[in-house]
Amino acid sequence: MKYSFKNDYSEGAHPKILEAILQTNEVQQNGYGEDEYSMRAKKLIKEHLNAEAEVFFVSGGTQANLTFISAVLKPYQSVISAETGHIFHHETGAIEATGHKIETIATLDGKLTPALIAMHLNKVEPVHMTMPALVYISNSTELGTFYSKDELVALWEFCQQRNLWLFMDGARLASGLAAGDLTLADVAKHTDAFYIGGTKNGALLGEAIVINNVLLHQDFVYNMKMRGALLAKGRLLGLQFLVLFQNGLFFELGHHANKMAAQLSGGIKTLGYDFLTDSKTNQIFPVFPNTVIAKLREQYEFYDWLKINEEKTAVRLVTSWFTKLSVVNEFVDDLKLAGV
Amino acid sequence: MKYSFKNDYSEGAHPKILEAILQTNEVQQNGYGEDEYSMRAKKLIKEHLNAEAEVFFVSGGTQANLTFISAVLKPYQSVISAETGHIFHHETGAIEATGHKIETIATLDGKLTPALIAMHLNKVEPVHMTMPALVYISNSTELGTFYSKDELVALWEFCQQRNLWLFMDGARLASGLAAGDLTLADVAKHTDAFYIGGTKNGALLGEAIVINNVLLHQDFVYNMKMRGALLAKGRLLGLQFLVLFQNGLFFELGHHANKMAAQLSGGIKTLGYDFLTDSKTNQIFPVFPNTVIAKLREQYEFYDWLKINEEKTAVRLVTSWFTKLSVVNEFVDDLKLAGV
Amino acid sequence: MKYSFKNDYSEGAHPKILEAILQTNEVQQNGYGEDEYSMRAKKLIKEHLNAEAEVFFVSGGTQANLTFISAVLKPYQSVISAETGHIFHHETGAIEATGHKIETIATLDGKLTPALIAMHLNKVEPVHMTMPALVYISNSTELGTFYSKDELVALWEFCQQRNLWLFMDGARLASGLAAGDLTLADVAKHTDAFYIGGTKNGALLGEAIVINNVLLHQDFVYNMKMRGALLAKGRLLGLQFLVLFQNGLFFELGHHANKMAAQLSGGIKTLGYDFLTDSKTNQIFPVFPNTVIAKLREQYEFYDWLKINEEKTAVRLVTSWFTKLSVVNEFVDDLKLAGV
Amino acid sequence: MKYSFKNDYSEGAHPKILEAILQTNEVQQNGYGEDEYSMRAKKLIKEHLNAEAEVFFVSGGTQANLTFISAVLKPYQSVISAETGHIFHHETGAIEATGHKIETIATLDGKLTPALIAMHLNKVEPVHMTMPALVYISNSTELGTFYSKDELVALWEFCQQRNLWLFMDGARLASGLAAGDLTLADVAKHTDAFYIGGTKNGALLGEAIVINNVLLHQDFVYNMKMRGALLAKGRLLGLQFLVLFQNGLFFELGHHANKMAAQLSGGIKTLGYDFLTDSKTNQIFPVFPNTVIAKLREQYEFYDWLKINEEKTAVRLVTSWFTKLSVVNEFVDDLKLAGV
Repeated sequence: MKYSFKNDYSEGAHPKILEAILQTNEVQQNGYGEDEYSMRAKKLIKEHLNAEAEVFFVSGGTQANLTFISAVLKPYQSVISAETGHIFHHETGAIEATGHKIETIATLDGKLTPALIAMHLNKVEPVHMTMPALVYISNSTELGTFYSKDELVALWEFCQQRNLWLFMDGARLASGLAAGDLTLADVAKHTDAFYIGGTKNGALLGEAIVINNVLLHQDFVYNMKMRGALLAKGRLLGLQFLVLFQNGLFFELGHHANKMAAQLSGGIKTLGYDFLTDSKTNQIFPVFPNTVIAKLREQYEFYDWLKINEEKTAVRLVTSWFTKLSVVNEFVDDLKLAGV
Repeated sequence: MKYSFKNDYSEGAHPKILEAILQTNEVQQNGYGEDEYSMRAKKLIKEHLNAEAEVFFVSGGTQANLTFISAVLKPYQSVISAETGHIFHHETGAIEATGHKIETIATLDGKLTPALIAMHLNKVEPVHMTMPALVYISNSTELGTFYSKDELVALWEFCQQRNLWLFMDGARLASGLAAGDLTLADVAKHTDAFYIGGTKNGALLGEAIVINNVLLHQDFVYNMKMRGALLAKGRLLGLQFLVLFQNGLFFELGHHANKMAAQLSGGIKTLGYDFLTDSKTNQIFPVFPNTVIAKLREQYEFYDWLKINEEKTAVRLVTSWFTKLSVVNEFVDDLKLAGV
Repeated sequence: MKYSFKNDYSEGAHPKILEAILQTNEVQQNGYGEDEYSMRAKKLIKEHLNAEAEVFFVSGGTQANLTFISAVLKPYQSVISAETGHIFHHETGAIEATGHKIETIATLDGKLTPALIAMHLNKVEPVHMTMPALVYISNSTELGTFYSKDELVALWEFCQQRNLWLFMDGARLASGLAAGDLTLADVAKHTDAFYIGGTKNGALLGEAIVINNVLLHQDFVYNMKMRGALLAKGRLLGLQFLVLFQNGLFFELGHHANKMAAQLSGGIKTLGYDFLTDSKTNQIFPVFPNTVIAKLREQYEFYDWLKINEEKTAVRLVTSWFTKLSVVNEFVDDLKLAGV
Repeated sequence: MKYSFKNDYSEGAHPKILEAILQTNEVQQNGYGEDEYSMRAKKLIKEHLNAEAEVFFVSGGTQANLTFISAVLKPYQSVISAETGHIFHHETGAIEATGHKIETIATLDGKLTPALIAMHLNKVEPVHMTMPALVYISNSTELGTFYSKDELVALWEFCQQRNLWLFMDGARLASGLAAGDLTLADVAKHTDAFYIGGTKNGALLGEAIVINNVLLHQDFVYNMKMRGALLAKGRLLGLQFLVLFQNGLFFELGHHANKMAAQLSGGIKTLGYDFLTDSKTNQIFPVFPNTVIAKLREQYEFYDWLKINEEKTAVRLVTSWFTKLSVVNEFVDDLKLAGV
């Protein structure tokens, strides 16, 4: 069986999560998120947030995005996203299916800036075009980049001035935070809402939507039920986030994933290969000759990302909370052999 | 802590499911339902189905209903449901949120019949009213009743004649099947689609949508992704159904739930109490004096269902795959004391 | 050719409207409602309204209903309507197609009251059911009844207390107002929004949506464009309402329609026939023997409304701004002959 | 008052249309498109079509686009359009509001080609991206260009091969046809559906949707009613198309608009000015110095289209069925003076 660097959701869950599931299995709990684990997990997460924020658990990222975005936009309003944004590129029209246009901005690195958004807004005509009302960013981005504190603050201030909501897709938030100087409290302070990704950071499933803006969280649970995002056994989501936010496990797993990626990058660089981007998160994009790729494919699974020229391709390698140092080192060794 | 008869999703999962999750935790698998457990589970379920049927796993019942129904209806088409149907009564407008009207029929017992539907169809005018195209039934129903084989066959033949799809909500399918003479193969043969409920029958979460009609399952997975119903770690759903369908565990758990309900009913009858309906499934509706209810509430949790008169109320008691005989007997003992 | 009493939109437009269209035909005007006729018509209508109200012209009633209702509801919110309400009964799921459930209340006469709505609200459970947020009424109703000032004020005060918007479908507003003691200013004062029907009161087409509540009209024109309700040659709508509201033509035509209906009712009563309802608007519902109906059908077109028994049927006769006294008298004469 | 070259819907309707409205005003007709004028108009239009085509009248272009496109796409399917396409650029998210993504292709001239679409299709991934199912083109385009017969046939054959519906937005079809070698019969033969624009070619309002593909027109009228696009007095639309298609008036008016544009272009060229595109339809895009534009603006209204550099701007001048030769000549004279 080949080892996969395809993504960060190839394995199950962190052992501490499984242990908690086992230990609480026979305890009766209320349904639909009214269980004690969910309540305790929310309390724990709120310690990082401002006093009025509310937390809601859902099963996955597309569900988090579509439920939140459709809840806050008026029918004629649209969301602004980088062209590479997950909601535009890889969610099968989930946002449009709720009735809203995504207006896209071309970027070099998957990140939006006040200048880029301002240029876009200049082209918007009233009435005959949708009204942009929400800015969607991902951290880390689909290209492995991340936002620094200064960058997020600048975006936030711009959005405040322009009357735009700011929403951060945190499917890979743990990795994004571990890569730079942003804290969870910073994100809470400088967005209207964001979600904390569990699926890609050690949970069986689950994302925690955090709504900081008190104008936006009222009745949000109705939207969840209506979109099929309110689990009967909500305990399963609450319990996992309870474990993840006890003793900083969530942050630790993000650090681990990045560390393994850095180790991998370092090894690849040592062998003389270039990278498409200079990533500090858990997704890296080395450029290999196609012949090398063919040899690596005998032992590993990973995605091609971009054809550079007839001979070279950038591939995507993803590490995770689970990735072991031994596997990373083995890959570098195999790469060395493949390149001979 | 009070014991809860409120529903059949108060506990976690069957131990065999937890065991399988533990054992496979470190095995890498593809995402989005392309894992080997999902594939094996589908194969196992298909042994009960016709050759062309396809199986799809989603997180919950509302999600199953909205994803399937919105996938098969044209924009101007509607779904017919009993007034008590879960999609009409308790899913926060999830179907309407996908753009479709639910046309309701009043029933005595939560069950639709060819005669009831025929009367409804007589009132439908073309063009200015929606066109009914799908009949939604639940088995067991929200009132604890279930369909016999004859009843389902009659509905199916009627729907075939009238060019209506027939869809069965199987949130409590295990209990519904255990109560009567229907088999899973019968359901597969006499519906266009149905779903097999895991959440209420021993899984942590998960429902298996079965689409028997080859005209309806093409590209269904696009709809799942679009509605946020395609889990990244689909393995979690596949694995659970794999366990549930090995050695008939799924059916066994349904039988157990019904048996516990029958034991509970028997004890209550012996004490001289009446019932709102004569249920053979895992939901029973005894009628108690309000004074008795008040005493029971000191030790148990359950829902009031219907006020009979100033002195009496029908309550709902739900047993499950997990309910223990000792608890049932204790309840009957406590009821005896409460009625003194 | 048979004479039709089927509806109030069988003929074209009032001659004054046609004259205005002819006279202004070659004048260049801005598109999309920015023409001078629309602006003058709005000003004229606003003389009846409070200072902050805004007026918007659209092509038809279903369009008015769906554009307004979908603009003010949040995704999980629903609209309350009588079971006989046009939006529920005869608009092909137009409201549901925008994502919203209609919650219905059975009535005797097509009219909602605070008591009826209060009883309905008692049954609404949070989160798992949609949240009613808007009350939809028609004046005159689909059954020919109308609201008195006291009735509307009572509804309005109830809606204010319960945090519900109140919206009046005025497809037949001219007839509704002419029948009772309500004025246009009363309607403006005691609803959040309503529309003034042109199509059924002498226009070629067109309804004027009036939004009294300043919270609701912001950006409404975006919704119009998005729903395909913003006409390029908006002048056609504006000009017609300009004519209708000059010298009270709109009100005069409503009076005429009712007067013709009263004349018709009077004649029918004189001949000894009963009525299904005691209508004072332009729709009347006499009960005739089927033999009489068969004879009338040789010369007239009209709809059967309700089968009373094997021998008798209530029919609907509709008069309009155009109906001539001579035609009414002829019908009564023919009815006399048919009954011999 | 300034003369406007802003668009082709600044005036009312062709005198023959007004005359027909006047003459038929008192004739009773059935509602909702069941009137005799609509039936006769459909018959007349069908003489240009294949035997199975069906014709449906609606009020405007956005309504035509959204009603048709939402009727034929499955929920997860998308429409392909040029980036300049009206549905993407200027309809306030009307298509997205019905739940569908628009996938855009950058073009030089607003026209799609098989090669451009093929390149786009190569980038589409299954399941995680929407499935393109319909190609939307405009003729003439938003940039004044048009499709030749060869170009349309090539597109049609490509769409047939790739299992894509082909839909033509004909808001300016009369001008598009008059510019090249395409006939209405060609359009009918080489698209699945298109619409014939009345609003911009002499009608008060109205577009005729033609559905050539028998798979697509069944029950279409339900979609019209549901979207608020079925006029009660459908006679108004039918009658206008009846007049437009008697004695070729529709085609004649398109020719006139183009002829006036050609005359205008000729005059402008004579004065030495360049054009942004070489348009043969009724929209032309001359490039003028900003100083000239400022002088012209004292007497004329028109839209700026594209800033060429600090000194020059391309403007858009639109002629119509109504434009008089004298006005064109005057403009050229005034341009001459302005350029001195």
